[in-house]
Amino acid sequence: MKKDKSVVVIGGGTGIFSILTGLKRYPLRLTAIVSMADDGGSTGVLREEFGILPPGDIRRALVALSGEEQPLANLLNYRFSKGSLNGHSFGNLLLTALTDLEGDFGKAIKQAEKILAVKGQVIPVTLDKARLQAELKDGQVITGETNIDVPKHDGHLKIKEIFLKPSCSANPLAIKAIQQADLIIIGPGDLYTSIIPNLLVQGITQAIKESKALKVYVGNIMTKFGETYGFQGEDFVEVIEDHLGENILDFVLFNNHQPTPGRIERYAKEKAQFVKCDPSVFLKKKFKIVEGDFLRPRGFIRHDSDKTSHVLFNLLENL
Amino acid sequence: MKKDKSVVVIGGGTGIFSILTGLKRYPLRLTAIVSMADDGGSTGVLREEFGILPPGDIRRALVALSGEEQPLANLLNYRFSKGSLNGHSFGNLLLTALTDLEGDFGKAIKQAEKILAVKGQVIPVTLDKARLQAELKDGQVITGETNIDVPKHDGHLKIKEIFLKPSCSANPLAIKAIQQADLIIIGPGDLYTSIIPNLLVQGITQAIKESKALKVYVGNIMTKFGETYGFQGEDFVEVIEDHLGENILDFVLFNNHQPTPGRIERYAKEKAQFVKCDPSVFLKKKFKIVEGDFLRPRGFIRHDSDKTSHVLFNLLENL
Repeated sequence: MKKDKSVVVIGGGTGIFSILTGLKRYPLRLTAIVSMADDGGSTGVLREEFGILPPGDIRRALVALSGEEQPLANLLNYRFSKGSLNGHSFGNLLLTALTDLEGDFGKAIKQAEKILAVKGQVIPVTLDKARLQAELKDGQVITGETNIDVPKHDGHLKIKEIFLKPSCSANPLAIKAIQQADLIIIGPGDLYTSIIPNLLVQGITQAIKESKALKVYVGNIMTKFGETYGFQGEDFVEVIEDHLGENILDFVLFNNHQPTPGRIERYAKEKAQFVKCDPSVFLKKKFKIVEGDFLRPRGFIRHDSDKTSHVLFNLLENL
Repeated sequence: MKKDKSVVVIGGGTGIFSILTGLKRYPLRLTAIVSMADDGGSTGVLREEFGILPPGDIRRALVALSGEEQPLANLLNYRFSKGSLNGHSFGNLLLTALTDLEGDFGKAIKQAEKILAVKGQVIPVTLDKARLQAELKDGQVITGETNIDVPKHDGHLKIKEIFLKPSCSANPLAIKAIQQADLIIIGPGDLYTSIIPNLLVQGITQAIKESKALKVYVGNIMTKFGETYGFQGEDFVEVIEDHLGENILDFVLFNNHQPTPGRIERYAKEKAQFVKCDPSVFLKKKFKIVEGDFLRPRGFIRHDSDKTSHVLFNLLENL
């Protein structure tokens, strides 16, 4: 029997959710490598009070990969809205309790995978604790993922450089998964706060470069105020290549199906705009552009799980 | 095929845990009917902040009846010991989140039974909210289960009367389970704070009396300061019969195997004593006394799960 191919999805936040839920229906060995830069909300409180690594993005990936019939999966994203528990997500509390019981964060995730009948595995990109820092084009330094993500600075300003402080080493399990991958998918997700924080971890970009896997970047559908305001497709790719190196990516996926004005309108108050991508600007690039309709037909403007995973799986099948 | 017999276990707190874990290995339809009087600790905070029914005793029964291979079951009794979550048990938070998501406490328990692959069912004795009140022999009135359980009063004093305020009606599911039972087991557990609070709920004693089930009371091995200080076997039975009525019980089980002085010694600081039971005092009673070694061989002085459930199952088989 042919061995299932290995797919690694690198990201954080909610961006990779639709990719993971889509790909889990295919015969693949799936690994989600997840950023450890989150420090806001429930996650921020638990980092501070329990000294654990940030559980929020791990929780989202676990839910995405959980067995379809798991009644517990719904519960993981539940947030308490009263009293001393206000703001905590149930899944974050699960990971906090498991970390204490099991003795470390990695074992806690393994146990959670078992409880949730997860298809695949979820790996924190690093087991080191660090904060994200951004230097803006005007020289200002912003500390903390949540302060970049929910900007207190002028969100029109561009980010000049972003780094983890102190610097972090890669989780050996993340390196191993990248080495063994047949396909590595980067994104989608908030560029500076969910995607790049993975590439900042020492050892990750090197491992991606050396991996024989097909390397795909999935670009965002909408910009984000405070980090990618005014970005077009090539701006996203430029930032990725600044960190990953040139001539590494094999494919870049961009949605070219514009949402209705009514759907875009709802994003006006957060100053998020539709990302336009002109394929002709990439003519000299090694990678191929895959344009298409990757848009969810209604609701939030996000990647459609089925459409996107179908294209990604086909890239792998046609290797 | 012969239909499995129905067994109802009535109690609360930790007392019925060993009975439930023992009986779940037999081919039986099991129901735990659980007291709703608890108002201390994590449960007390959640009652106050979320207005829910007390989850603690439900949680313990769910854990007792959970599938053997459920990694989540261990987690349910985990208690957070830091920060804003300090003192909360994970299982109580699970039931609180489910109550909010499902809309009511009963549905939340059903969902938890599914998540935990529970063998049997767990039913709150009432869905009404009430506090336990005790009137002591000296006329003092103590309000709140936890204030009786962890006595702030002189724990040598006996309880004259105990009641729920306001009065509560039985959960129809509890009545149904009692009506359909082949065996009803009352206890073991803290007499006034875990056992009697069930019998105080309107409709429960009537249903027990009318049920054709075999009725068994399992007496405690140790007394409890603040509620049963100085009690012997017949004192426990007297309180049960005061509430249930005479000539209702078919069997009374008492452990007659005295723990080693070393094991008893550890209970001295909580002023708990070994319960002696002289079977001859019951000669005129309708019920039969079943004496024996029901003691766990080491550790906490509790009913041994295997020994006790073996005897209880045999009572049922010999019907």
